[in-house]
Amino acid sequence: MIESKIKEKVYVIGRGNVASHLCKALEGKADVTMVNPHTLEELGDDAGFILISVKDDAIREVAEKLSGTSSVVAHTSGSTPIDVFNGLGIDRHGVFYPLQTFSSDVKLDYNEIPFFIEAESSETSEMLKALARQISGNVYDADSEKRKKLHLASVFACNFVNHLWTISDRILSENGLDFDMLRPLIKETTAKLGRTTPFEGQTGPAVRNDLKILDLQREQLESDPEILNIYNILSDSIINTHNRQK
Amino acid sequence: MIESKIKEKVYVIGRGNVASHLCKALEGKADVTMVNPHTLEELGDDAGFILISVKDDAIREVAEKLSGTSSVVAHTSGSTPIDVFNGLGIDRHGVFYPLQTFSSDVKLDYNEIPFFIEAESSETSEMLKALARQISGNVYDADSEKRKKLHLASVFACNFVNHLWTISDRILSENGLDFDMLRPLIKETTAKLGRTTPFEGQTGPAVRNDLKILDLQREQLESDPEILNIYNILSDSIINTHNRQK
Repeated sequence: MIESKIKEKVYVIGRGNVASHLCKALEGKADVTMVNPHTLEELGDDAGFILISVKDDAIREVAEKLSGTSSVVAHTSGSTPIDVFNGLGIDRHGVFYPLQTFSSDVKLDYNEIPFFIEAESSETSEMLKALARQISGNVYDADSEKRKKLHLASVFACNFVNHLWTISDRILSENGLDFDMLRPLIKETTAKLGRTTPFEGQTGPAVRNDLKILDLQREQLESDPEILNIYNILSDSIINTHNRQK
Repeated sequence: MIESKIKEKVYVIGRGNVASHLCKALEGKADVTMVNPHTLEELGDDAGFILISVKDDAIREVAEKLSGTSSVVAHTSGSTPIDVFNGLGIDRHGVFYPLQTFSSDVKLDYNEIPFFIEAESSETSEMLKALARQISGNVYDADSEKRKKLHLASVFACNFVNHLWTISDRILSENGLDFDMLRPLIKETTAKLGRTTPFEGQTGPAVRNDLKILDLQREQLESDPEILNIYNILSDSIINTHNRQK
């Protein structure tokens, strides 16, 4: 549900991909301005919302400079607890976490992105949710513990998955083959997720317990101990995971 | 390029997902019959092609029963070398390898599937390629070594990726969260592959060398040594891979 335009001014502090995508997502739906974290003294006192979208390590430092503000202040980090605001005299504060991988110069369907909201009070929570609903149809409550788990799960589902594709690309290019040859396979692997759980959709030599193929593939990786190690650990984990369920 | 219908009879030996998808893919384009590997004696002597689509371990045994045939005999395995046919008196033989993950009861766009062909002679190779082009626009030569590398790369790109999604699903469900919340992230992770190499598209705490988040996420996995081990090895591999390129 998209609500009517937010009346309050929104400042987004940051210069990275998350900050610039949040500004784009809010354009036309709120009066939004991107602010360089190094020029915070220029921040007006007219803000309804101040979103801190900087590196996790820098959130506390930015928040300190906002001490005493009457604006709703929220950070956008998956792994930083709400207590980063403790003792700073920011009455209304919270978290405004969009679960997505943000690249520069990429168009995203913002309406699909799930937003996870936490706040010091239910009143602030409702305000942050109203702001999130300007962007997305998927707005949820999540406390700091749940948000950490979401971030952790997204590292496995996105960052580690992408690294496995990097390894595939390397195996192919070292052998005069093209990563494009794998695209239909990757497309179908992802499409299958929409039809079944990943557990039920598991295929390949490990889940078949095809020891002959496992040995043959290990042999091919003997010259690359790092990749061999990843092969062994993931194959063992597939075998263990599926044995536990038998 | 789809060529005109193949005149020769095609038998597909096997009862699994690959065999049944190959039959579906060839329907209307060749006179194709699926054959149970246990009833090979019923096989007519009218075949142009016999495709052996059984488990890797069983290919030799099936091929032995075809000794002396004048048909073109090919197996469909990624990791079995062409020399599995050695000494069997099958004059025309080869490999007909479709690189895809085949699930039962799933519609696939067969025209996209890359086929990798190898044969004992260029004449047989051309015949197998003509058959493959009935199905797909992407038909390539690949010797047994290259095919093994393709299969290995596909284990990383498909089977291992799917297992990481299984782990994500487990982290979420153990914490009262829903895998559906990750779907937009997974969709964008895959979409990004079409715009950049996976190496260039890498995001997350490991590639940022964000040691604070890495430590925090390791803490969350302390009770699960298997998953913690996967976390450490993949994070280290991301860091190593990207350091090597600096």
